[in-house]
Amino acid sequence: MLMQLDFASATPIYRQICDQLILGIADGRLCAGEKLPTIRALAVETGVNVMTINKAYQLLKQEGYITADRRGGTVVSSSKGSVSSEKLLGELRLRAAAAKLAGISGDNWLELCGLAYDGMIAKGSKDDDV
Amino acid sequence: MLMQLDFASATPIYRQICDQLILGIADGRLCAGEKLPTIRALAVETGVNVMTINKAYQLLKQEGYITADRRGGTVVSSSKGSVSSEKLLGELRLRAAAAKLAGISGDNWLELCGLAYDGMIAKGSKDDDV
Repeated sequence: MLMQLDFASATPIYRQICDQLILGIADGRLCAGEKLPTIRALAVETGVNVMTINKAYQLLKQEGYITADRRGGTVVSSSKGSVSSEKLLGELRLRAAAAKLAGISGDNWLELCGLAYDGMIAKGSKDDDV
Repeated sequence: MLMQLDFASATPIYRQICDQLILGIADGRLCAGEKLPTIRALAVETGVNVMTINKAYQLLKQEGYITADRRGGTVVSSSKGSVSSEKLLGELRLRAAAAKLAGISGDNWLELCGLAYDGMIAKGSKDDDV
């Protein structure tokens, strides 16, 4: 999977790496059990510090998206992610606030939300390579 | 307006300050033209470094939520925020991915999105103090 990082963005790089991998899992580019690059390999590929990649992988492990062991390396987890409805609602409130202040109507907001969800296909239903 | 910051969160403090102020404007706790605390005052109130508060205010200015001049101080902008539908859609995709991987159905997702938007009242329609 090609990692697209925006080094000019206000979003920290480790968070961008997490987001890209979560998106990749959700839209089927990464399947359950699929092996991820090693921290070192991803650091070389992206030109990002090893510590930054490590921070991203640690966070993804904590959130249940990936699992790692010394022999098998890091793989996409087959269990579900752990985000709660409350956490999600808190995050959505921030986007809804920005949307409302930009003059986006409730209907347009829901349309955007629907589009965002529909862009994701069922986990593991596609067999693209990493 | 009381600022609630989570120092244990992975979200940078300057981003949390931005988010809280945008939420405050969107839900009517902060009105257009309302004066915000000075950077120094907010730094003392929150126990956060002056540079961090300054970064948050600069970002809010760039995004059009607040305006500042040397005489009047920093006030809530009366113009609309500048977030684009594309930027919003990109951010929503990340939340939708996390939701889908946590087993939240499309209907539940849209319900959460609706709740998030409905929590915001029209800008400036309430006269709470800061």
